[in-house]
Amino acid sequence: MTDTKFTELQEMRSAALIISKYFEIPTPLLFSPSLSEKLGAEVWLKCEFSNPIGAFKLRGGLNLISALADKNCSHVVTASTGNHGQSIAYAARLFQIAATIFVPENANPDKADSIKRFGAEIKYVGDNFDSCRSAAIEYSRELNARYIHPANEREILSGVGTAALEVLEAGGQLKDADVVIVPVGGGSGVCGWILARDELSSPTKIWATQSAQASAAYESWISGKLVTSPNLTTSEGLSTGDGYSLTQEIMRNGLDDFILADDSEINDAVAIMLETQHVLLEPAGAAALAAAIKAKENIKSKRVVLVCSGSNISRAQLKNIID
Amino acid sequence: MTDTKFTELQEMRSAALIISKYFEIPTPLLFSPSLSEKLGAEVWLKCEFSNPIGAFKLRGGLNLISALADKNCSHVVTASTGNHGQSIAYAARLFQIAATIFVPENANPDKADSIKRFGAEIKYVGDNFDSCRSAAIEYSRELNARYIHPANEREILSGVGTAALEVLEAGGQLKDADVVIVPVGGGSGVCGWILARDELSSPTKIWATQSAQASAAYESWISGKLVTSPNLTTSEGLSTGDGYSLTQEIMRNGLDDFILADDSEINDAVAIMLETQHVLLEPAGAAALAAAIKAKENIKSKRVVLVCSGSNISRAQLKNIID
Repeated sequence: MTDTKFTELQEMRSAALIISKYFEIPTPLLFSPSLSEKLGAEVWLKCEFSNPIGAFKLRGGLNLISALADKNCSHVVTASTGNHGQSIAYAARLFQIAATIFVPENANPDKADSIKRFGAEIKYVGDNFDSCRSAAIEYSRELNARYIHPANEREILSGVGTAALEVLEAGGQLKDADVVIVPVGGGSGVCGWILARDELSSPTKIWATQSAQASAAYESWISGKLVTSPNLTTSEGLSTGDGYSLTQEIMRNGLDDFILADDSEINDAVAIMLETQHVLLEPAGAAALAAAIKAKENIKSKRVVLVCSGSNISRAQLKNIID
Repeated sequence: MTDTKFTELQEMRSAALIISKYFEIPTPLLFSPSLSEKLGAEVWLKCEFSNPIGAFKLRGGLNLISALADKNCSHVVTASTGNHGQSIAYAARLFQIAATIFVPENANPDKADSIKRFGAEIKYVGDNFDSCRSAAIEYSRELNARYIHPANEREILSGVGTAALEVLEAGGQLKDADVVIVPVGGGSGVCGWILARDELSSPTKIWATQSAQASAAYESWISGKLVTSPNLTTSEGLSTGDGYSLTQEIMRNGLDDFILADDSEINDAVAIMLETQHVLLEPAGAAALAAAIKAKENIKSKRVVLVCSGSNISRAQLKNIID
C-alpha cells in the first residue's frame, strides 16, 4: 500500500455507517430517459444533492468531524466557497464543536445563510476561495484550532468515497457503469471515486470535469506538477486556483480522462437539467452534464453516471440562467 | 374487511417488490433545516419526484400495468393532465402494452413531450382534465381497450401506498411522524397514505391539501357526497372538477384534515422550496408546503412530512414564479 492509496474499503465502510445516521444513503441513482435520448447513451444521475445541505460534501464533513470529536477537538476552522463550509458547520453542530468558516466576500448568499443557520461563525475575506483559505490558516494558528483542508484530508476522502461504493460495489446501484463523470474543484469528490473504484478493482472509468475558467486541477493533472492558474469561474463550487498535493497524486495514478467545459456550457447544462429532467442543480452540480455533452461521441451507447454534486443555486444565478 | 379497506399490507408489499425493479425505493426522506426553522416544526420532505418520470404516480402505474400485463392486456387508454399519463406511458412501454393518453389541449408541454418520448399515442382534447376524461372513456369503448381511471383503481392505490409504508412502518424512515400532508387531485396519493397508515395502526395524522381554485375533493369530503365543482387551478397536477367514489370513501373514513391553499400560495411555496431548500417542484408538488405554511400554528414543534409529489414544472411556469 502506497502513501496515497491509504483509503481502504474498510475506512469507507466505517464512514458509511457514520453517514447513515445523519441522512439517508444510498442517495438515489436515477435513470434519465430524456438525457439518455439526448446523448445516445444510458444516462444515470447520482443525486448527491439529496441530503440536508444539498451537496455531496456532507459525506466527508460528517466523517471527518466525527473523527475529530473522538479526539476531543473543540474548534475547527476552514475556508469554503459554500458547500464545504455548510458541511463542516452542519457536522460540527451535530458533534458540538465550534466552527469558523471563511468565505469570499461575494459568496453565494444562500450558502452563507445556511452556514450561519447551522450555528457556525462566518468570516468574509477577499474575493475568491484562495484568499480566504490563507486567512483561515492564519486564524486557526492564532486560536490553536484545527484547520480543515478542503481536500487534503483522509477522512474527507473516505467520506465522499462512500458515494462511489454505493454505485460500484457488488450489489451496488450500477456496478457495471462504463464511465462516471465527476465535477472537480479541489478534487476530493473525484478522488473518492478513484479510490473506491481501485479498491473494488472495478473496470469503470472515472472522468473529471472542471471549468475552463478555473482549470488548476486540470493543468496540474496534465503537467504532473502542482500548478497555480487563474480562478475566474462563476461556478463557485468549482472555484480553485491551485492544484492540491494529495488529490493530484491520486488523480495522477487513477483518473482516466479530464474534460474542461466553459462556464457558459455549464450554465447551459443547468438549464437542460431543469427543462428535461426537472432537477435543480447549481452550476458545479451540472458540470458533469456539460462534460457529457462535450464528450458525446465518446460516451455513445455507454452506461454513464453523472455525479450531480450539489443543488445550492442562488435565486440570482437561477434567474440569470432561465432568462 | 369492507369494500374500501381492501388494500392490504400484503398488496402494498407486493407492489413494492414490483416497483423496486424499476426505480430505487425508498425514495429519500430529507430533513429540511431551513423549512424547520421557518415553520417552527421538524420538517421532512418525502421526495416522491425521485424517479425516472419525476412524479409519485409511477408507483401506481407500474403496479397496475404489471397486473394488466399478467392478464394479457394489449392496449390501455387513460386521461391525464400529465403525470398519470407519463406514469402509464412509461410502465406500458416496459411491459410492451400499447398506451393512448388523452391530455388537455393546454397540457404542460414537458409532460406531453415525455408521454410521446415513452412511445405512447397522445391525443389532445378539450381545455381541462374533465373533458379529456370523457373522450378517453369513449375511445377505450370503441377500441375495446382497457380504460384506466386516474384514481379508482385498486392497484394504483396499493402502488402509491408504498411511499407511506416506507415512512410509517416499523423500521421505516420516520414511523413516529405526527402529520403527513399530501397534495390531492383525484386523491389516489392521499388514499395510499390513509390505507397504509390504517393497516399499520399508526397514530400519524394524514392531512390533504388542494387548490382553492379546484376544490371538488375538498367539497366532496366536507359534504359527504360526490360534488362537481369549478376546476380553475393553474396547478395542473391538482386539476379535477369531480370527487371520485372510491377515493372519497377512503378519505371520509380516514382523512384527519383538509387544507385549501390558493394557487398564489402554492406558487409561493414553489419559490420558497427553490430558495430555501433548493428543491425543484411543480406547483402540485409544493402544495403540501403551502398547506403547512397556512397551518403553521397547528404544526408547531411537530414532526411533519411534506409529500413532494412531483417536479415536472415547465420553463414558463418556473420563469413566471421566479419573476
